[in-house]
Amino acid sequence: MIIIKIGGGKEINLKGAIQDLAELRERFIIVHGANAVRDEIAEKLGHPTKVVTSVSGYTSVLSDEAAIDAILMGYAGLQNKRIVELCQQHGINAVGLSGIDGKLIQGARNKGIRAKQGEKIVILRDHSGKPKGVNQELLELLLDHGYVPVICIPIIDENNVAINSENDDIVHLLQETLQAETVVQLIEAPGYMADIKDENSLIRVIPRASLEARESQVEGRMKRKMLALKKLMESGATRVLISDGRVEHPIQDALSGKGTTIQ
Amino acid sequence: MIIIKIGGGKEINLKGAIQDLAELRERFIIVHGANAVRDEIAEKLGHPTKVVTSVSGYTSVLSDEAAIDAILMGYAGLQNKRIVELCQQHGINAVGLSGIDGKLIQGARNKGIRAKQGEKIVILRDHSGKPKGVNQELLELLLDHGYVPVICIPIIDENNVAINSENDDIVHLLQETLQAETVVQLIEAPGYMADIKDENSLIRVIPRASLEARESQVEGRMKRKMLALKKLMESGATRVLISDGRVEHPIQDALSGKGTTIQ
Repeated sequence: MIIIKIGGGKEINLKGAIQDLAELRERFIIVHGANAVRDEIAEKLGHPTKVVTSVSGYTSVLSDEAAIDAILMGYAGLQNKRIVELCQQHGINAVGLSGIDGKLIQGARNKGIRAKQGEKIVILRDHSGKPKGVNQELLELLLDHGYVPVICIPIIDENNVAINSENDDIVHLLQETLQAETVVQLIEAPGYMADIKDENSLIRVIPRASLEARESQVEGRMKRKMLALKKLMESGATRVLISDGRVEHPIQDALSGKGTTIQ
Repeated sequence: MIIIKIGGGKEINLKGAIQDLAELRERFIIVHGANAVRDEIAEKLGHPTKVVTSVSGYTSVLSDEAAIDAILMGYAGLQNKRIVELCQQHGINAVGLSGIDGKLIQGARNKGIRAKQGEKIVILRDHSGKPKGVNQELLELLLDHGYVPVICIPIIDENNVAINSENDDIVHLLQETLQAETVVQLIEAPGYMADIKDENSLIRVIPRASLEARESQVEGRMKRKMLALKKLMESGATRVLISDGRVEHPIQDALSGKGTTIQ
């Protein structure tokens, strides 16, 4: 089992990725982002995406009701179905699912984000949470009958309310549940770079043991990424391939080790 | 098997309908519209929905690429998932699907709409078509495992492209495929009215035999509706209940015959 995580940037070559996946002989599922599409929709509808930084240094989207609407439109609507359509055009019988469909990804609502507002520390409550359970029966029902699940947020909370969640956490939970050996992450960069501004600083291999040290060196969203990678490796993934989604053959390149391999 | 068709108007009491459905002991699927939501999104994104009238007097939405995007956002995204969320909140394990997911609803692309532009007759080609086939295996796989499919446009054409289609035609095909005895249609009116402006002109019962005569008396969208009703009855539906979706108990009222019964 391979989990394909497709980033939500505008420059990802979705068509190239799906073309590659059509050649894959192993079982796979797709988990995708759509932040670029979502932000564009939210902006045009008059509710631009709000980002907050917690006191511990992690950044997150503040998910009010309008933000969940924008996720439903951008992730579960536009991006999910355009990926499903591409899959169908390449002979992959995809079924697009958000985490609320069949309670696919069940989560626990966050208690609130501790964030700075000027000099004060405030608790911001929103519609977001952590994924805690997967409807494995539904996933396997589809996979066993030849369907490829294409998964995105929102997920569903304890009270059956749609909430936002981090894709890295969702991928981690899916990896654990399905015992996927390989996780491919397509991003808008050649892989993990020592210097984020220098594409030539790509690091080819990161041994699992050095992830902790790297986590303490980085900030913001990258900090969360490192934590997520560490968790993936701890829960049994054999390898994580972080690779360029902008190239002609994103999946072929990833699987042949052209990006960063964490093992 | 009951097919519940929920109209896409803003005034439909979705919560009331889902509450009622949670009490239903029979198998059912939901097919929903979202035209109000779609039109609002399309307008705000700068591509307002375009409607054309064919030379034979039927009106249709002109579905260009931007219109399909608006359908994906409004139908498959926002409305579909908000209905799925409501279902989950009332103990119905819903799975939202567009017609492209698992090639659920396969269609044939329209050759073009013959329409008047001023004095000239032009052929308008767009991304729309007629539903021709249903992935019955996928529907029954879900139903047999306790999931309730919640279905919407777009559907998928011969070249695996997402296209718009009339919900009445989709419901007809699903009715034929699943041999549903009952079709409930929730609309923003008490039922079928002799005078569309007078809510007191509700017709309680329309015998199947009189549908043809009624079709010739009406115009525009209503003409298409009458044709759709005729087809539903011809293909084996025992009864079609057209009922008010704006009331406290839309499904209870429909099933107890408070709207229009066609039999």
